[in-house]
Amino acid sequence: MERDYTYPIMPEIQARYATRQFDSFPVSREEILPLLEAARYAPSCYNEQPWRFVLGDTPDTFAKLAETLAAGNAWAKQAPVLILVLATRFFKLNGEPNPYSRFDTGTASGFLQLEAVRRGFAAHCMAGYDADKARALFSIPETLDIIELIAIGRPANLQQLSSEAQAQEKPGTRMPLADLLFP
Amino acid sequence: MERDYTYPIMPEIQARYATRQFDSFPVSREEILPLLEAARYAPSCYNEQPWRFVLGDTPDTFAKLAETLAAGNAWAKQAPVLILVLATRFFKLNGEPNPYSRFDTGTASGFLQLEAVRRGFAAHCMAGYDADKARALFSIPETLDIIELIAIGRPANLQQLSSEAQAQEKPGTRMPLADLLFP
Repeated sequence: MERDYTYPIMPEIQARYATRQFDSFPVSREEILPLLEAARYAPSCYNEQPWRFVLGDTPDTFAKLAETLAAGNAWAKQAPVLILVLATRFFKLNGEPNPYSRFDTGTASGFLQLEAVRRGFAAHCMAGYDADKARALFSIPETLDIIELIAIGRPANLQQLSSEAQAQEKPGTRMPLADLLFP
Repeated sequence: MERDYTYPIMPEIQARYATRQFDSFPVSREEILPLLEAARYAPSCYNEQPWRFVLGDTPDTFAKLAETLAAGNAWAKQAPVLILVLATRFFKLNGEPNPYSRFDTGTASGFLQLEAVRRGFAAHCMAGYDADKARALFSIPETLDIIELIAIGRPANLQQLSSEAQAQEKPGTRMPLADLLFP
């Protein structure tokens, strides 16, 4: 089943999918920072900017993040960079819990992913990792929620993959647009 | 203070800001659906697609959503369209609470906003509205969280605004990129 587009939406949105096959070629921090710059300019409630990032772009930090991966996400160890996404739990303004923290961080993560595609990278968000282990390994305080782990790299050349691996690299489909409208 | 970009990120991200001054020219549903199509192709945990939308693009639905606006967001009554964003609370798969629902809906909202900018519209997300009133007015069940209200329309011509209104239309600045990195 192929994706169906009723409207010609942004090429980066059309091209984005949950890539699993990455090129192992290294990616430098200078190549990653523009993706974080894109995230940085996401909107947020009271411009709180709750998003925070642990960069796994050195042998040590990458190994620590890779150690937290669930067995089903072992493919992500092939990606050259992992980024752990955190979110501040409390408003700077008044110390109250920020109920928009996860939502706003989701917007920032989306901006990061589209900027990645625009620059020839792929960014695959994962929920399958051990957040408690990540908290311990990086001494992440309880004032920060641990939200997701992102694998980033250049997508592999599909032509060079096995047919089994190629079959995994299928963009996911979506429910009909009409089903998203309420009532 | 101006925004500072260290890297030339996606033009739509650079151009997006919390627009308050909208052109009153009507926007048709056919112009809004591509923005929802962009949201539709956001990634989500288990491809759950938790985002749902109440379209305020008819006199009746717009008036109901406008009625929920906080006093500080009265400006949004000038926008031609309001959209209420909802998120399913439970996984279809197993009925368990979906902890990624808000985060994934944030990504979808970000895709919607960038597609809006790409098409010459502005989309301004708001937290200032009465969610309980919206729930009652549209009989929204408790299985759906009410997340945000978005004002959508074409941005006003800045040259035609008062200097006071122009001053409000300043893109928000951001904390330094280095401050987003942990540790």
